[in-house]
Amino acid sequence: MRVLITGAAGFIGSNLADRFLAGGHTVIGIDNFSTGQPEFLVGARSSERFTLWEQDLLDLDALAPRFEGVDQVVHLAANADVRFGPDHPDRDLKQNVLATWNVLEAMRRNGVQRIAFSSTGSVYGESTVIPTPEDAPFPVQTSLYGASKASAEALISAYAESFGFTAHIFRFVSILGERYTHGHVLDFYKALRRDPSSLRVLGDGTQRKSYLHVGDCVSAILAALEKATGKVNIFNLGTDEYCRVTDSIGWITGYLGVEPQLQFTGGNRGWIGDNPFIFLETAKIRSLGWTPELTIQQSVIATVRYLEQNHWILDRR
Amino acid sequence: MRVLITGAAGFIGSNLADRFLAGGHTVIGIDNFSTGQPEFLVGARSSERFTLWEQDLLDLDALAPRFEGVDQVVHLAANADVRFGPDHPDRDLKQNVLATWNVLEAMRRNGVQRIAFSSTGSVYGESTVIPTPEDAPFPVQTSLYGASKASAEALISAYAESFGFTAHIFRFVSILGERYTHGHVLDFYKALRRDPSSLRVLGDGTQRKSYLHVGDCVSAILAALEKATGKVNIFNLGTDEYCRVTDSIGWITGYLGVEPQLQFTGGNRGWIGDNPFIFLETAKIRSLGWTPELTIQQSVIATVRYLEQNHWILDRR
Repeated sequence: MRVLITGAAGFIGSNLADRFLAGGHTVIGIDNFSTGQPEFLVGARSSERFTLWEQDLLDLDALAPRFEGVDQVVHLAANADVRFGPDHPDRDLKQNVLATWNVLEAMRRNGVQRIAFSSTGSVYGESTVIPTPEDAPFPVQTSLYGASKASAEALISAYAESFGFTAHIFRFVSILGERYTHGHVLDFYKALRRDPSSLRVLGDGTQRKSYLHVGDCVSAILAALEKATGKVNIFNLGTDEYCRVTDSIGWITGYLGVEPQLQFTGGNRGWIGDNPFIFLETAKIRSLGWTPELTIQQSVIATVRYLEQNHWILDRR
Repeated sequence: MRVLITGAAGFIGSNLADRFLAGGHTVIGIDNFSTGQPEFLVGARSSERFTLWEQDLLDLDALAPRFEGVDQVVHLAANADVRFGPDHPDRDLKQNVLATWNVLEAMRRNGVQRIAFSSTGSVYGESTVIPTPEDAPFPVQTSLYGASKASAEALISAYAESFGFTAHIFRFVSILGERYTHGHVLDFYKALRRDPSSLRVLGDGTQRKSYLHVGDCVSAILAALEKATGKVNIFNLGTDEYCRVTDSIGWITGYLGVEPQLQFTGGNRGWIGDNPFIFLETAKIRSLGWTPELTIQQSVIATVRYLEQNHWILDRR
């Protein structure tokens, strides 16, 4: 199979590229390296079945020719910084909505009809149903990030109906593991390296969140692409547990052997649009036979271990 | 109150402008006249409290200054042709998503914090819950039009959360009445004027649809703006009945005194993305004390009467 991955040099994209290559497929990677890391593709580039294009998704005419002869698109490129939406609202719109629309148009121009898409549990806003299933009540969006991903989902579904595409849409919890480049584990790790005696925590530490290891995430995507045969296939991806911010801090500091004093900024939200409780129902993806191999605790520790062994990431962004 | 209406020269926009002016408010109308009709604003222009700007919403820098000092935005401008999405997919994206985003940015630049928005029952896709309430299961979009409106809703809600806006989002059924310029009543009326002996009908005529008179629609918007005080207020707008396409044809032909042979194109959908059964739950808007004054039958006949008296509309688009 000829797979095109946008955001191929990113955290999830590079892990997925490696897995597709290991499975004998041909991979075309696209990345503008705004947040992607060339180091993540060292393995992939050693394969003759891998091609990389440094390309921005906002330039449709330059983008479209890359889609010729592609069997499956996996569209992962995005602005993934959920926290900073209000500081530059056009970033979510351009990187997530317009970029997705260009991917859909590039597919249509080339007769490519299969797309997988990395959406987010943030599309549920603050759901009243927890754990939140895929058919939860029509949500009200509470973050620009969630709104932009919900918009991209809507466009993808409408293209599926209008042009005969098949879509696999994955609503992720936060992903952890090897090649992790942003999020609370990185923030805490960096802060503790600077000063292990004290740690500033956004909110009151009671926020409950779900996480999934990138290896389990990639396995779930591959399982769904193989087994879910509807027109628009929507799956939550997560573990069947959640943790509090303070749990995660305990695992990180325990692993590092430090005992910082925690300084909470207060309130039950870390930032505007932060959802104090994210926990997704994952019965649907499990019904395909997939199950995660790592717990949240194991994933957090794997992430810290990876950061310890890859300090270059700390200075990269 | 100083009200800015986008799409002020349109069907709903001009009716709303008249009502706001009659209520003593100041109205700033914006329209690019791509589908708006100057004739609809003859009454409004006779008021000293009405200002009209011929302006495209896609030019943010030209648009923004019009929002200075505005208390309430009513964003109605849109591509409203639900049927032709697949023929030019960029129209829905530009006219509905990008235009809405520009309106939000123009508001933010000027400290304007209240927006009302004309969404659509099409955002529910093909809901499994009928009549469909505002918190129906998270829908899968089946038309580019519905997807673009769902995207606009998402952006508006996220702006409300991120920047303290208050939003009133109205999910309309199809609107009928004075100044109606497109839709099945116009199509049938034109076809029957050409040839009263035969009428081509998209689909098999069994499609069930809901309609609301523009006067009732405007009353509902005004009631919600006055009485609904949440951050994001979402209301279905419709009557508590639906009709079949063949019912509507019966009312139109009965009023006109013609007996055409019906030629059905077949299938339970008139076009790609057509929803064979649209019927919205309206208990929420009714709980504010609003109730429609006209039945669907009365609205259809009022529309035909209006077209009879305004033949210039038949040749306008």
